[in-house]
Amino acid sequence: MTPQRRHDPELRAFASDNYAGVHPEVLAAIAVANGGHQVSYGEDVYTEHLQEVFRGHFGPSAEVFPVFNGTGANVVALQAMMDRRDALVCAESAHVNVDEGGAPEVMAGLKLLTVPAWDGKLTPELIDRQAYGFDNEHRARPAVVSIAQSTEVGTCYTPEEIRAICDHAHGLGMKVYLDGARLANAAATLGVPMRAFTTDAGVDAFSLGGTKNGLLFGEAVVVLNPEAVQGMRYLRKTSMQLASKMRFVSVQFEALLGTDLWLRSASHANAMTQRLFTAVRDLPGIRIDRPVQANQIFAVLPPAATEALQKRFRFYTWDVQSGEVRWMTSFDTTEADVDAFAAAIAEELAAAL
Amino acid sequence: MTPQRRHDPELRAFASDNYAGVHPEVLAAIAVANGGHQVSYGEDVYTEHLQEVFRGHFGPSAEVFPVFNGTGANVVALQAMMDRRDALVCAESAHVNVDEGGAPEVMAGLKLLTVPAWDGKLTPELIDRQAYGFDNEHRARPAVVSIAQSTEVGTCYTPEEIRAICDHAHGLGMKVYLDGARLANAAATLGVPMRAFTTDAGVDAFSLGGTKNGLLFGEAVVVLNPEAVQGMRYLRKTSMQLASKMRFVSVQFEALLGTDLWLRSASHANAMTQRLFTAVRDLPGIRIDRPVQANQIFAVLPPAATEALQKRFRFYTWDVQSGEVRWMTSFDTTEADVDAFAAAIAEELAAAL
Amino acid sequence: MTPQRRHDPELRAFASDNYAGVHPEVLAAIAVANGGHQVSYGEDVYTEHLQEVFRGHFGPSAEVFPVFNGTGANVVALQAMMDRRDALVCAESAHVNVDEGGAPEVMAGLKLLTVPAWDGKLTPELIDRQAYGFDNEHRARPAVVSIAQSTEVGTCYTPEEIRAICDHAHGLGMKVYLDGARLANAAATLGVPMRAFTTDAGVDAFSLGGTKNGLLFGEAVVVLNPEAVQGMRYLRKTSMQLASKMRFVSVQFEALLGTDLWLRSASHANAMTQRLFTAVRDLPGIRIDRPVQANQIFAVLPPAATEALQKRFRFYTWDVQSGEVRWMTSFDTTEADVDAFAAAIAEELAAAL
Amino acid sequence: MTPQRRHDPELRAFASDNYAGVHPEVLAAIAVANGGHQVSYGEDVYTEHLQEVFRGHFGPSAEVFPVFNGTGANVVALQAMMDRRDALVCAESAHVNVDEGGAPEVMAGLKLLTVPAWDGKLTPELIDRQAYGFDNEHRARPAVVSIAQSTEVGTCYTPEEIRAICDHAHGLGMKVYLDGARLANAAATLGVPMRAFTTDAGVDAFSLGGTKNGLLFGEAVVVLNPEAVQGMRYLRKTSMQLASKMRFVSVQFEALLGTDLWLRSASHANAMTQRLFTAVRDLPGIRIDRPVQANQIFAVLPPAATEALQKRFRFYTWDVQSGEVRWMTSFDTTEADVDAFAAAIAEELAAAL
Repeated sequence: MTPQRRHDPELRAFASDNYAGVHPEVLAAIAVANGGHQVSYGEDVYTEHLQEVFRGHFGPSAEVFPVFNGTGANVVALQAMMDRRDALVCAESAHVNVDEGGAPEVMAGLKLLTVPAWDGKLTPELIDRQAYGFDNEHRARPAVVSIAQSTEVGTCYTPEEIRAICDHAHGLGMKVYLDGARLANAAATLGVPMRAFTTDAGVDAFSLGGTKNGLLFGEAVVVLNPEAVQGMRYLRKTSMQLASKMRFVSVQFEALLGTDLWLRSASHANAMTQRLFTAVRDLPGIRIDRPVQANQIFAVLPPAATEALQKRFRFYTWDVQSGEVRWMTSFDTTEADVDAFAAAIAEELAAAL
Repeated sequence: MTPQRRHDPELRAFASDNYAGVHPEVLAAIAVANGGHQVSYGEDVYTEHLQEVFRGHFGPSAEVFPVFNGTGANVVALQAMMDRRDALVCAESAHVNVDEGGAPEVMAGLKLLTVPAWDGKLTPELIDRQAYGFDNEHRARPAVVSIAQSTEVGTCYTPEEIRAICDHAHGLGMKVYLDGARLANAAATLGVPMRAFTTDAGVDAFSLGGTKNGLLFGEAVVVLNPEAVQGMRYLRKTSMQLASKMRFVSVQFEALLGTDLWLRSASHANAMTQRLFTAVRDLPGIRIDRPVQANQIFAVLPPAATEALQKRFRFYTWDVQSGEVRWMTSFDTTEADVDAFAAAIAEELAAAL
Repeated sequence: MTPQRRHDPELRAFASDNYAGVHPEVLAAIAVANGGHQVSYGEDVYTEHLQEVFRGHFGPSAEVFPVFNGTGANVVALQAMMDRRDALVCAESAHVNVDEGGAPEVMAGLKLLTVPAWDGKLTPELIDRQAYGFDNEHRARPAVVSIAQSTEVGTCYTPEEIRAICDHAHGLGMKVYLDGARLANAAATLGVPMRAFTTDAGVDAFSLGGTKNGLLFGEAVVVLNPEAVQGMRYLRKTSMQLASKMRFVSVQFEALLGTDLWLRSASHANAMTQRLFTAVRDLPGIRIDRPVQANQIFAVLPPAATEALQKRFRFYTWDVQSGEVRWMTSFDTTEADVDAFAAAIAEELAAAL
Repeated sequence: MTPQRRHDPELRAFASDNYAGVHPEVLAAIAVANGGHQVSYGEDVYTEHLQEVFRGHFGPSAEVFPVFNGTGANVVALQAMMDRRDALVCAESAHVNVDEGGAPEVMAGLKLLTVPAWDGKLTPELIDRQAYGFDNEHRARPAVVSIAQSTEVGTCYTPEEIRAICDHAHGLGMKVYLDGARLANAAATLGVPMRAFTTDAGVDAFSLGGTKNGLLFGEAVVVLNPEAVQGMRYLRKTSMQLASKMRFVSVQFEALLGTDLWLRSASHANAMTQRLFTAVRDLPGIRIDRPVQANQIFAVLPPAATEALQKRFRFYTWDVQSGEVRWMTSFDTTEADVDAFAAAIAEELAAAL
């Protein structure tokens, strides 16, 4: 029997932007690229054209390598930026440190040097806590600074902040990698092109997230400084990130970045988060400490309120000890979704107090 | 601008079954699963249902783990079957040995013990060439026998042959993994259900290829003997093979295996190969040594013929030294495609002699 | 020309206990084991006998695996205690985290989960900061608690403290590994047998340092709970820690542990540290925050004093930012050495103030 | 109780040169370097001087890195010569392939591309069987040719043969590593300085074995072409091969190479092998196929003879299937040892026929 719908297409959660499905424009693009034969493993015409699309966004030095997922993008790019002797400096809260099952260490042998950062953002001063001992074989050599934009806790670096990090890192002989799983959300928040805080800020390589921005699947590693990156093609293959029918990854990214879909979707997701933030920020019993700058809110509620609310809407507890929860919106979140959720939050807070 | 078609949807090659696109029934299934939110990373209703679909094919002990691609499937499963001290025995021609860029060694630290096998098939005798020294720390411990069905050179094991391998391996305390990137083609050739040479033959775990059988992307690792496999969920994540929007991998497999699409597509691809084989096998100047049992032919032609032919049709030279080429058909190859190609082969052979 | 002495055998530093040479009793033991042939790779009579020596100290369940060095001991043992999916919890200051060039991650793919610990000691509460998420594939599974005795900052756990850690870890389904590069120093300080804080405290496996206690080279991995440890023999080999002429590692350990040499040497080193501590603790301008419980002192001096002092005696700056220095004594440090150094410290402090 | 002699110092086997002990001149050198403090981890005066000793042998470009053992030397050097994308070409019989428990793959992620070589020696033609596909991400990039001198089966390359390999490899953009666990034996056989088949033949880096030539422990990695090797210091540390009391490794090598001890010992071992070869080569029932060019003989005997002989003298069966055994001599083998063994061989052959 051909697959039947097994879910309610009108039900949306506040758990993650990867709970959402595929944007219709993306699905249409896949159909466009279908039919006939195309050379596999990236030598197809859609992947070829995608280079132009990325150069349009990120300048003539940009080279794009489509991959399957975000962990894959990070692990491939970081391997290409690091020798066997190297370490990377990142925030304790970095996805590469806490949310990839240890993939950087387990699969690629990458040593992580972490620093605490309450807002998920590194600074030159924070980097310096780990960026020392460059010629000491007893310590893995700090070689890469890895930041995320927007960060894992929903904050955004300004272009100037990233520029300062890049200048500092380069001055130390280090490279800068940017985890852009939610790059579009940052651009939407900042009101600048994505290149303002990548190419123009001195980043050496970055990932650009597609899945969280409405693709079926697909992330992109973008190399801006080819001298800082070695062996991408090989490492994408050995890291099991080389799609055979790559035309379908590439055409999705073309649908996203060859139009303003990337910005429309990210702006909408951000706007829904701000709508929620406005509705609940002043409710008694709620505490929101972290800046709300992208498509997620971190809130501390009374445990009873969280418990009751999670029976009605799906979302994640971020920190079991503090009780902090995360609410996230996506390209398909509606105003009505937000209003219903905000009303529920208000109800459960009132009931819990 | 939304993506435009950049290729000729009527042009098909004989290079690889992953040059083909997505089967329309698969694309339709993706649309069915779209809309609304589903829990990410595999806790969605489509992935849940997929367990039933696989148990229908492979029996009640089967557990399926969707992943992104074939190299990923192999590396994840083999890690789960092997301790740090273990080695796997495979044919020299095995995909894990020659066509994954070294991923098993480079990313997972797996030691391969290879044996030559002209037809790509292991036997108990061939296995014994490497299956010794089980308690000798100077030698990685042979722990897994890895075979492919159909093989990388287009041959098929009979169920009895696989049973003999499994019995032999189990008798030695070894496990059996089967790389089923083209599992459906083997079933179509043999005229038996897929479980006849997996579950019923004693295989401990295997992969089932979707991409080469008409999916957009997606492979499945199937565990039949849970005691032989450890930590699949974790290793799928660390190996960068955990799709966030997994519902779209699962529903594709449902479209494939919940109907007879898997068999229709594989049977058609095989039939096209047989049609080509019949048309060219007796042409003067051609030599076809390997059995033609799935959807590929390995032929030795005069170099001039190969050169001329490759200007007209895309296909790969398999062995630069011997001049052996590989022709492959897929679910979308037409009889007209085959006839045109066969005619061209005849022409170029005639011209070269 | 046969090697000539190129150094002053009467010159001793306060830099590290591995600046010292070989204890004469150890060198004599090597000569005893020399001559004739012995089976290599550990099947010799000295290694066989060493099992008895270790069982005498650590009880009948103890099994000893001699290796080359401390990093090797740690990496071999931790691999044997951890699956590919596992992580270990340790103090930020742990040698495995900061002083092995990243060997656990780079060579063995081990994920480290660190917690800050000012005195280098973990507690159940500190462990809990990382010991969660045992069934979450997005996070490496906390599987091992790794502690050091004495610690990298010269402190000692009481047997009760280690017992509490073991009980807590075991209650969570975790194992406990103890880095005993300076195990003897801890026993000397605590005045208890080494088994009091290893076997009797519930530790699953540990290393016992020989090099820092007067051996030419050699460390030992000791397994107390064989169920917690898999594949030691193989992992010692693949980790390049299997000495071919193992009789010479084993006989050194016999010289150390088959007599009271281990305790004499450690007690002496500790006493020299206490002598230094007593002499300088109350000098104006010095600050010693960390407990002085083994053979090292961590002191903060005025930068000018440190600079002047390092021209006269070799020792290490521990923390460039705070100016904290480390002074260490060894089995061969003399009272006269200490007195001369203490006088120099007093002089340079006076000059710097 | 201080260690007592537990073995017969007059008993010698024909099993391996690492069954032997320490040459008295080496033990004396260790005593010379003992006493006082020396900077650890290689910054001591003995290691500094060792650079001169090696430059005397191998020319001004040589840089030596003492390590613990042969597997360590190979794995450190090969990591330093290979990117993450690279593979090495070696003989099937290479120690790195068959006798290191998989360390190159398991610990360092190195992909091996093997070719059969009956006499253990590669040639340009054999190398070409694997040296192709230099820009194909589906295949690990052949980057290093690894040879052994003398080989694992007791044969020696001439300097010209190694020069041909180096020229061929360099012409392909590949590097050459030489496993010199028994380098001295080859020099003794060939009657040329060691540099004739290393520096002068174009080798990029090699190991020089000390243990098998009479050291207590210790091997050396020697870099001849620094551009071909990256990060040795770091990789020696992460590979657990950095000795803290390195003065004792270095002074042993000084005893070996700063005098003619290396050549005396190797020549003696080789001579003992030739004595044995002469005595047994024409015995009825023995077959010796492989050239006898260093300190080992590979012989095929009737199984009954092998069995009886192994009850009297310890040696290894090399190939269980063919019954080939290996006899090895060392620096301390005496003429009387050989004569007794040869007589026993004759007796057991006679009894078995």
